[in-house]
Amino acid sequence: MSKAKRIIVIGGSAAGPKAAAKARRMDQHAEVTIIQKSPDLSMASCGYPYYVGGFFDNRNQLLCTPTGVVRDPKFFLNAKGIDAITDTEVVAIDRANKRVTAKRVDTGETTEHPYDKLVLATGATPLMPPVPGTDLDGITTLQSMRDADYLRQIRDDGMIKKAVVVGGGLIGVETCEALHLASIEITVVEMLPQVLMFLDWEVAKLVENHMRAKGAHIITDNPVSEFLGEDGTLTGVKLKNGTELPCDLAVVATGVCPNAKLASESGLAVGKCGGITVNEFLQTSDPDIYAAGDCIEILNRITGQRVHAPYGDLANLEGRVVGQNLINGPTVTFPGTFQTGICKVFDYGAGATGLSERNAQAAGFDTVSVITAAPDKPGFMGAKLLVMKMVADKATGKLLGVQCVGPGDVSKRIATAAMALQGGLTIDDLTVADLPYAPPFSPAVDNVISTSHVLENKMTKRMAGISCRDMKAKVDAEEDIYILDTRGADEYETMRLGIGEVLIPLGALRKRMDELPKDKDKEIICFCKISLRGYEAACLLEAHGWTDVKVMEGGIMAWPFAREK
Amino acid sequence: MSKAKRIIVIGGSAAGPKAAAKARRMDQHAEVTIIQKSPDLSMASCGYPYYVGGFFDNRNQLLCTPTGVVRDPKFFLNAKGIDAITDTEVVAIDRANKRVTAKRVDTGETTEHPYDKLVLATGATPLMPPVPGTDLDGITTLQSMRDADYLRQIRDDGMIKKAVVVGGGLIGVETCEALHLASIEITVVEMLPQVLMFLDWEVAKLVENHMRAKGAHIITDNPVSEFLGEDGTLTGVKLKNGTELPCDLAVVATGVCPNAKLASESGLAVGKCGGITVNEFLQTSDPDIYAAGDCIEILNRITGQRVHAPYGDLANLEGRVVGQNLINGPTVTFPGTFQTGICKVFDYGAGATGLSERNAQAAGFDTVSVITAAPDKPGFMGAKLLVMKMVADKATGKLLGVQCVGPGDVSKRIATAAMALQGGLTIDDLTVADLPYAPPFSPAVDNVISTSHVLENKMTKRMAGISCRDMKAKVDAEEDIYILDTRGADEYETMRLGIGEVLIPLGALRKRMDELPKDKDKEIICFCKISLRGYEAACLLEAHGWTDVKVMEGGIMAWPFAREK
Repeated sequence: MSKAKRIIVIGGSAAGPKAAAKARRMDQHAEVTIIQKSPDLSMASCGYPYYVGGFFDNRNQLLCTPTGVVRDPKFFLNAKGIDAITDTEVVAIDRANKRVTAKRVDTGETTEHPYDKLVLATGATPLMPPVPGTDLDGITTLQSMRDADYLRQIRDDGMIKKAVVVGGGLIGVETCEALHLASIEITVVEMLPQVLMFLDWEVAKLVENHMRAKGAHIITDNPVSEFLGEDGTLTGVKLKNGTELPCDLAVVATGVCPNAKLASESGLAVGKCGGITVNEFLQTSDPDIYAAGDCIEILNRITGQRVHAPYGDLANLEGRVVGQNLINGPTVTFPGTFQTGICKVFDYGAGATGLSERNAQAAGFDTVSVITAAPDKPGFMGAKLLVMKMVADKATGKLLGVQCVGPGDVSKRIATAAMALQGGLTIDDLTVADLPYAPPFSPAVDNVISTSHVLENKMTKRMAGISCRDMKAKVDAEEDIYILDTRGADEYETMRLGIGEVLIPLGALRKRMDELPKDKDKEIICFCKISLRGYEAACLLEAHGWTDVKVMEGGIMAWPFAREK
Repeated sequence: MSKAKRIIVIGGSAAGPKAAAKARRMDQHAEVTIIQKSPDLSMASCGYPYYVGGFFDNRNQLLCTPTGVVRDPKFFLNAKGIDAITDTEVVAIDRANKRVTAKRVDTGETTEHPYDKLVLATGATPLMPPVPGTDLDGITTLQSMRDADYLRQIRDDGMIKKAVVVGGGLIGVETCEALHLASIEITVVEMLPQVLMFLDWEVAKLVENHMRAKGAHIITDNPVSEFLGEDGTLTGVKLKNGTELPCDLAVVATGVCPNAKLASESGLAVGKCGGITVNEFLQTSDPDIYAAGDCIEILNRITGQRVHAPYGDLANLEGRVVGQNLINGPTVTFPGTFQTGICKVFDYGAGATGLSERNAQAAGFDTVSVITAAPDKPGFMGAKLLVMKMVADKATGKLLGVQCVGPGDVSKRIATAAMALQGGLTIDDLTVADLPYAPPFSPAVDNVISTSHVLENKMTKRMAGISCRDMKAKVDAEEDIYILDTRGADEYETMRLGIGEVLIPLGALRKRMDELPKDKDKEIICFCKISLRGYEAACLLEAHGWTDVKVMEGGIMAWPFAREK
């Protein structure tokens, strides 16, 4: 029998243990060692905000197998046959002699470990804004078990009343909810014009509105300029525009940076996003060294560009690919990512897959898109609203991306859309998709399909759409437009935009055409609650000779601005 | 201006109104007429069981737009510009002169209606078993508003104590739940060996077990031989094996038959499933007559065979295609169905897309498949179980079908799988799918992906699987096998199969190998709760020289038979 293969995996969070466990299952005789800097292994780090928010109380649930066994070194040894060394950092890789130097975090003691194959799963480090005061007490991230324990303690103590979350990305938004549930008054500060950059602006604004409705303060387009403190302790956050936000706690969630230092110091290639460069087999520039997880750059499967996609699910999938290649050599490929993401935002889901319209255009696509609003099941089964934006390539009709937000079942629609992207489907393909229908689960025409119908209507020029954002710009610019609300009078009394619209219910429109502009070339914009009746009205007006009739996409439900009522 | 196109649509339930409305939007000058036999229009017929079950109380919700307007002839006229004639049956089509004869259901008065284009959306009729007694009072179907009203009244009266549901298909299972919620003792009788024929046997059995756990009685493999009565009123149902089930109510849900009589009498082609034959444009054998909905046969998109697929979602999609072709001529195609279906079964979802293994083999595929059981999100977020079966084509690795049942989010997984089928994805493709992950919505590796991982392990011979059903057969045949339960002692005390298994927890297995069979060729079958640890154990045993080691797929969670504990 040949000598046992020695495999060392640096990093014990997600990608590392997955690679190690897969390699072990493929080769029971290999020597598999995980070297982990932190005290914990296989942490469910995406679960930190829910522990902080009190969705569950036992921190060990973040470290357990489904049957409740904590994944500690003893578990790894007995159940997996893997030697897991914690509290130990690999400080050097000697590629020529194929060995790593590891250093105990507590004692500083170093040890040498030879390898045949090495895996870098070193993760990523939170970025801190380059402003004064970041060393004050009361500033944290939410990136480690220690951070989670710290914030959970704050929740349990109940002493802190005001906090600022710096950064409105996935973790920032999740942290906002978690701290809000801890009865802390929250302000989220984002330097960019919106939260959740995987969404286009007008979709993200709906999420911000929901967060505000829940009691959170959201400030966008305004970077932090300084953390303010007294006696070494945080007292507030100062913004670039001069605003000072008094607070006892700041959680920084302004993104993460791949931990590629060890790799670059070892002479391995690092890409322009700062992540370790890997080929399709997830091999670094040294064929005996693989890398996976938050420390690498991978391909965006639509643009072909290398991106940093630090998602827990991808880390697991990459780890599994690496595990196989460690044993069989480079045979299994990892195709990259659609950058599919989702988060819970209080009672909303917010998710996206593929390219936003902004990113698609930045990547050179000539796009066509639409926004819809629709219930996520029949009304009699307790429908909840979903707002969806679908983006396609104008030339080929291929789906480029889908965004979805709202109280309805977002997760299913994003999963559906992610698979449509992987299949390379066009909008035409989506119009005849065969999705599971029963009233407890979806409307007869699922939101993904109905949105494709509307987008197809746009692409075939049956419908001219205008986004709420562009409509608002026209109103603000006092353009000479005729705005037609086609809902019922009762609906109008309950809720209305109040931007100069005229109310003519769709059912009365055929009889009241004489009230419409005499100038048949006047720009008319129709809408209703979700713009289905608005679309019917537009069809009718066009057939009666009006030449410039548009539909405000998604109707009032997609309107992210203030309403009169 | 040319003469207005005259469009007549026969049938006003789902496909008909959709075709009419789409045609209207495409051509505001056409004369569009719906002729409907029943008094109601655009009924949400898939919602009947939920009305009967008391999920909501206002029957008009089954007939309403999302904003609460009942879709009656006035609504169709005012909001849609469509002339909808109810209580009127089309009794003849004169294709030579392009006119139909319609007859008032109440008065018998007939009228003639000329058309340029005609749509048949005549639906389907419930099948009744060919046995004595079907005309007794107390026997109904659940196929019309009248049926729904009748059963709802029974619920509200609260007089009926025992009912039999004949047929364990989608409607039978939904009706079982509805009547159970009305505090009626239910027995479901199915002539085939299982309920829900879109599932394979061992998956369907899990659903039956859940129905029994909820208090319903399920009898399979036993057809009804007679409806028993006294004085014209139902008193019981007699089965072929002689069993008599006393009851005051019987709901027959043994499938539906396409309403193709009008078509065949008019000389239009009808297929071997009894449905109207249509081409890819949903044109009948007369190019001026289209057909859509439950009255037609369409292509199964995997086998290419013509099937009868009476689903509400497909009816809508077909109607939209017909609407476009009515106006533009045959230009838009309908590719067919993956026969995607889902239903709520008490606290379970049960769904499938593509081919079951039975149907795949019947269609000539050489299949490979696997069953898994896994939580639908992390344990700390309140995970619920999902059992999934995935079927692939052995030669190409292409996905053929997915079935999923359990208390977890079935609907998302079936939607995901349906899109994977439409994209023509392989199991390898699925292993690296990029689905939306956050703890409130799914595990880090979604069930669809993890199941593809296990199936890939089988396809690459890393794992030999055996279904619970085959395992049970071996036990029943007293085959000489060694059965290894790899769970913890505490788990074993709480729940166990009791089929002669030996308990050695995975964590102790490396040290207790000497307890295993000395004969290295002995058949060993490993399992645990969901067979993840069982798989780890199998890998270990194979590496130590045992040559015939299998994993019982899905573990105890997929075991559909009685357990010792």
